[in-house]
Amino acid sequence: MGSIAYLDGRYLPRQDARISVDDRGFLFGDGVYEVVRVRDGIVIEMDRHLSRMARGLGALSLAFDPAPFREISDRLVGDNDLRRGEALVYWQVTRGAAASRTHQFPPPGTPVTVFASATAFSPPEAQRTQGVRVILVPDQRWSRCDLKTINLLPNVMAKQRAIAAGVWEAIQVRDGAVTEGASTNVFGVLDGVIRTYPRSPYILPGVTRDVVVELAIAIGLAVSEEPLFVDDLPWLSECFLTGTTNDVMPVTEIDGRRVGLGRPGPIAARLYGALMARWREHEPSAATPRGAGE
Amino acid sequence: MGSIAYLDGRYLPRQDARISVDDRGFLFGDGVYEVVRVRDGIVIEMDRHLSRMARGLGALSLAFDPAPFREISDRLVGDNDLRRGEALVYWQVTRGAAASRTHQFPPPGTPVTVFASATAFSPPEAQRTQGVRVILVPDQRWSRCDLKTINLLPNVMAKQRAIAAGVWEAIQVRDGAVTEGASTNVFGVLDGVIRTYPRSPYILPGVTRDVVVELAIAIGLAVSEEPLFVDDLPWLSECFLTGTTNDVMPVTEIDGRRVGLGRPGPIAARLYGALMARWREHEPSAATPRGAGE
Repeated sequence: MGSIAYLDGRYLPRQDARISVDDRGFLFGDGVYEVVRVRDGIVIEMDRHLSRMARGLGALSLAFDPAPFREISDRLVGDNDLRRGEALVYWQVTRGAAASRTHQFPPPGTPVTVFASATAFSPPEAQRTQGVRVILVPDQRWSRCDLKTINLLPNVMAKQRAIAAGVWEAIQVRDGAVTEGASTNVFGVLDGVIRTYPRSPYILPGVTRDVVVELAIAIGLAVSEEPLFVDDLPWLSECFLTGTTNDVMPVTEIDGRRVGLGRPGPIAARLYGALMARWREHEPSAATPRGAGE
Repeated sequence: MGSIAYLDGRYLPRQDARISVDDRGFLFGDGVYEVVRVRDGIVIEMDRHLSRMARGLGALSLAFDPAPFREISDRLVGDNDLRRGEALVYWQVTRGAAASRTHQFPPPGTPVTVFASATAFSPPEAQRTQGVRVILVPDQRWSRCDLKTINLLPNVMAKQRAIAAGVWEAIQVRDGAVTEGASTNVFGVLDGVIRTYPRSPYILPGVTRDVVVELAIAIGLAVSEEPLFVDDLPWLSECFLTGTTNDVMPVTEIDGRRVGLGRPGPIAARLYGALMARWREHEPSAATPRGAGE
């Protein structure tokens, strides 16, 4: 964990960053969050994360413009000595602490709580090389999974089931369709077409998911945003997860059954390569300015 | 708000009761809670609240025995000078603060966070006399509504819609059936039979709900634990809400349409009377020991 955190306008030692027991984040899970990836001091896909958070804040009627997270992230990366290599920055906004606990919103003018932290990160490269195993679990979440809120208990319970089963992720199933993992989106390759659950209230519009869909289309791969059903899974040639901390992660086994040849597949590898190439373009320190090559 | 709160073994001024930003209650809504009613220093239905919390803790694999909330509640009521009249005590247990944010459970031995507070309370007597108005909203919650967790964002948003509409409560509808309010259970009287959604994963097993069902049966009223559908609502002779802070609350209008004669009905009044009589029996200061009368 980074040792300096941000809380409500102050940068302070993380152990001193403490919130009121009356904070609606603590009492109701009444807030939204983002986890952003930082490489050599640069936040990856900053605009998309800010835009998703702004949408979530709007849906929850939380009056806060997330733009200051740009500067907050940069300062936390510096203060925590994370300017080289990989890091994660966490952003959270809650509806603040009210004088009394009521489900309804607190009086206008109650300040929101704004929290951010930064921590070093090691991408799961060993897992990416070997591929990971997953289990299927029932999707018990609410019908606004498109909002990145801190009401994460179903995701916690699903992930814990995966860990207890000795696997990487729990893939959630609603009405027979694969929606997403506990903290990842899910893709499968069926009859040569890359499939993933469509943007809808039943999945998080993952930043990495969206970028991977765009990259696949740009490369000329066949992509269809339509659900994969459990009955389709035995016929997949590949399966992979996407997410801010997973990038593109090949799945080699679902519920103990091998996916395709049981090893990471070529489409996952190609998309991972395209994602890394995209990120290199983002780097201001790259020798060739963006657009100058090719 | 009471001025003395309980947090992790200490009684302290509420403004000094502060939790880590790493608390899983704040990051994931990973915890359970109860609100208990206190009358003249006595917690109403203590055993049922403890039992429900124990079940929730078990479902979340949270290793904590809630029995200490007996003593904690008593001490908070005393310390906050709430031994006479009406009060509420709030209990919450979360999975504690871990060294790193991961969906999966933190390492064994991570201490849970235990919080409790007490506050004076004024029962909504004016509303009970007049009856209240409600609106219908879609039930967007997850499929484990039977657990009293702090993942309360759907309830928050539903209640806020009610407040914005100028009414008392939002009644949630799933698949055409009335499940429950944002913080109450819902009863209706149809063809002389008291109906309420059955115990299931789609409603909270309300303490007041369960007691009211038992009282209705004991009185000899017809009760059926089966869903009321939206299509049934125009035919109700009565509708009422139950809950720890609502007791039995008559509903006189649903979505702008009058219920029955548009005034509090006799069955709600009778059940409220039976509930108050039950509570009087609980009082150790009652002149007649329980069972000695009648």
